[in-house]
Amino acid sequence: MAYNSLIARVELTHVSFGEVASVIGKAGGDIISIDVITSSGESSIRDITIEVGDNEEQQVLDNLKAIDGIKVINVSDRTFLSHLGGKVSVESKIPIKNRDDLSRVYTPGVARVCSAIHEDQRKAYSLTIKRNTVAVITDGSAVLGLGDIGPLASAPVMEGKAMLFKQLGDVDAFPICLDTQDTEEIIQTIKNIAPIFGGINLEDISSPRCFEIEERLTKELDIPVFHDDQHGTAVVVIAGLLNALKVVGKNIEDIRVVVNGIGAAGVAICKMLLSAGVKRLVPVDFEGAITYGGNYPYPMWQWLAEQEQVESQPGTLKEVIQDADVFIGVSRGGLLTGEDVQKMAENPIVFAMANPNPEIAPEEALEHVSVFATGRSDYPNQINNVLVFPGIYRGALDCRASLINEPMKLAAARAIAAVVTEKELNAQYIIPSIFNEHVVDKVRHAVIETAILTGVARRIPPDFR
Amino acid sequence: MAYNSLIARVELTHVSFGEVASVIGKAGGDIISIDVITSSGESSIRDITIEVGDNEEQQVLDNLKAIDGIKVINVSDRTFLSHLGGKVSVESKIPIKNRDDLSRVYTPGVARVCSAIHEDQRKAYSLTIKRNTVAVITDGSAVLGLGDIGPLASAPVMEGKAMLFKQLGDVDAFPICLDTQDTEEIIQTIKNIAPIFGGINLEDISSPRCFEIEERLTKELDIPVFHDDQHGTAVVVIAGLLNALKVVGKNIEDIRVVVNGIGAAGVAICKMLLSAGVKRLVPVDFEGAITYGGNYPYPMWQWLAEQEQVESQPGTLKEVIQDADVFIGVSRGGLLTGEDVQKMAENPIVFAMANPNPEIAPEEALEHVSVFATGRSDYPNQINNVLVFPGIYRGALDCRASLINEPMKLAAARAIAAVVTEKELNAQYIIPSIFNEHVVDKVRHAVIETAILTGVARRIPPDFR
Repeated sequence: MAYNSLIARVELTHVSFGEVASVIGKAGGDIISIDVITSSGESSIRDITIEVGDNEEQQVLDNLKAIDGIKVINVSDRTFLSHLGGKVSVESKIPIKNRDDLSRVYTPGVARVCSAIHEDQRKAYSLTIKRNTVAVITDGSAVLGLGDIGPLASAPVMEGKAMLFKQLGDVDAFPICLDTQDTEEIIQTIKNIAPIFGGINLEDISSPRCFEIEERLTKELDIPVFHDDQHGTAVVVIAGLLNALKVVGKNIEDIRVVVNGIGAAGVAICKMLLSAGVKRLVPVDFEGAITYGGNYPYPMWQWLAEQEQVESQPGTLKEVIQDADVFIGVSRGGLLTGEDVQKMAENPIVFAMANPNPEIAPEEALEHVSVFATGRSDYPNQINNVLVFPGIYRGALDCRASLINEPMKLAAARAIAAVVTEKELNAQYIIPSIFNEHVVDKVRHAVIETAILTGVARRIPPDFR
Repeated sequence: MAYNSLIARVELTHVSFGEVASVIGKAGGDIISIDVITSSGESSIRDITIEVGDNEEQQVLDNLKAIDGIKVINVSDRTFLSHLGGKVSVESKIPIKNRDDLSRVYTPGVARVCSAIHEDQRKAYSLTIKRNTVAVITDGSAVLGLGDIGPLASAPVMEGKAMLFKQLGDVDAFPICLDTQDTEEIIQTIKNIAPIFGGINLEDISSPRCFEIEERLTKELDIPVFHDDQHGTAVVVIAGLLNALKVVGKNIEDIRVVVNGIGAAGVAICKMLLSAGVKRLVPVDFEGAITYGGNYPYPMWQWLAEQEQVESQPGTLKEVIQDADVFIGVSRGGLLTGEDVQKMAENPIVFAMANPNPEIAPEEALEHVSVFATGRSDYPNQINNVLVFPGIYRGALDCRASLINEPMKLAAARAIAAVVTEKELNAQYIIPSIFNEHVVDKVRHAVIETAILTGVARRIPPDFR
């Protein structure tokens, strides 16, 4: 059950607070705090912060209102309160205290800085925000589980992402919500606004447009472009898989992997599985298994059908999952039962990452599988791409990578996996928490090292010299 | 003379600091501070901060290097140092301390906020950064006095503007530097990125493209669009003029005004002069006076030629300035002499705002005119549009104005003028300093009041209810 906090401002007249506390408790609410706003002999106004389960909010409020002598003035919800006015701000790094300061950061002094960049464009990396700034860009077409809600409604997610970029990776990220869903216009717009940014993080753009947008931008811009829904997810899945394989004692070259849901995330996962050495892969979508040699309407499905590691045997999900070592789901809830996973190979690994309901209910899966992971925070082994983007971008910016290539992503996955030590590793702990303080540093280090090795780094950071 | 600070890191071996100080002084430099970095018996390394005039930097360094026993390790310039890494940052407003915080500002809690905005788009103003965020956008085509230096090289100016927006107006401003100079593409790009912004501040876009870009965006977007080079300059000119007229005891309806340089700023100044009540106007560009009834290649010149307040008598600048009450120059340096302004009407007012060299040298003008103003900070009466945009946008955002109309600009000009009290007002003090703490509040108040009166406010701020 998901919990939520609400703050009820109530006016009490001749009512004991004990009675109030009692009815809140009866409706399933927990009182977290009470703040007295005003109090006179006759009455008092208080803010009561209450934690409630998903469906209990209304009952709590109904119970409160039913008490004689209580008036509910208003009800605020902590989630909404934390969004008031937005979640990020733009700040000056230096105060302008006097005319002398002004003449340095603005006219006339700034002109010399502009001229220096005009003469040598690379100086933008030292003299502007470019070196630490990433655009978090969406068109609002595939936001969380909500779908196509448009640019304005997607802003809170982009702002949340910008917060995580800053707090975890010390990256300045600015949310951009595009008022177009046309592929060419998105590409052109992003190219047009690119100069001030050191990288572009694409977000929640629906498949299959996301593939072309990312591919074209990577080719046409000289800064890294990263579609988080694809690669963030793929990197953290591979990280989890590497550790899960250690738990069950299997080699990546030997396993048979079923990936269900061949959209943005699924395609990227399949690609990375191949890069990581998987020899037997079964991509599955609503038409069943995508098979080697088949003909498909989407370029990405066709690409998969041309990879020799992809099996040629057709079948439904329930058929092909038989004898699979690994199931990776990025599709929708309730597709599999305990019976299905029982038919998998010995010591099966199941990553059921559909949100909010996994492809198989944890209760049904857990007794049959060796390692189980979801996208949720209320079970062990949360596969969360918040583990990926802060470190990937910290690394890419620090070495001024011109792009984020497949080896860099694979290195990031290995780095995340390596945060869990041999000693700590077990079926319930294959992936570190997003609050683990080593993750960003390790990912950064791996990304920079690989960028230098693969020749895409344009700067060697001091700690690599 | 403009001054600049430099920091020289030097290693001294068997040299007295007195000798060092002496050669710096001889070259015209002033020692501001000395920091000892390391010191051993034999030698010491010190950072010497030196203020130097425009052309003295090399001499100071040459003199230093000529001393026996001194080694100049490196030279940093305070202006460049203050630009290292850029001048603004993006910050989280709330720390994410634990999973509970995360579930509110990011998934899963954020989904409810997204849905709320999806159902009622106006909620973006309370639940995202839109209500306080402005884009500072340039295409790099007309940057300061530097001209077409492109998007990357213009970034330091946009960042400086963003700093001023924050410090003076508490507005979150983010710099966007466009990699296109095509009118249609600029319009489309800005429309595409508009959703997250509460306003668009156009900057340093060359004339005549800037007119169409601003006009079209104002029509096609429902947030304010303001080209600072036009309207910021026009507002502060009118503010200064209103006070200058009080000093010389003339009415705006009676004066004859010559405006020289009919580009972005000149057009906007002419328009506002007409709105403010000027009855006799002579716009002048390189071909001489633009006359009533004439035919002109640029739409804005043509528009002026159709205004009946514009005089029909042709002539060169030196001819038409005779008997003018007011000269406003936004053109280039050295166009006028003392003789020219001597031929103006009694008690003339001259605003010579070309940068860095005014249309007439202050030394030549001052003895012949009653009120003299420039764009420079080293003479009294600096006409600086930093007085305008923070307050205009603070007001426009607070009342969610759909646009910034002519009456709002005029109200802003009157508010700036009114900051100088009757008692304070004199020929050397017609315009407040940009550090005057009353300016932003007064401008904000005037802008909101006028927005409400003219029906473009979509919210009544609490202090206006």
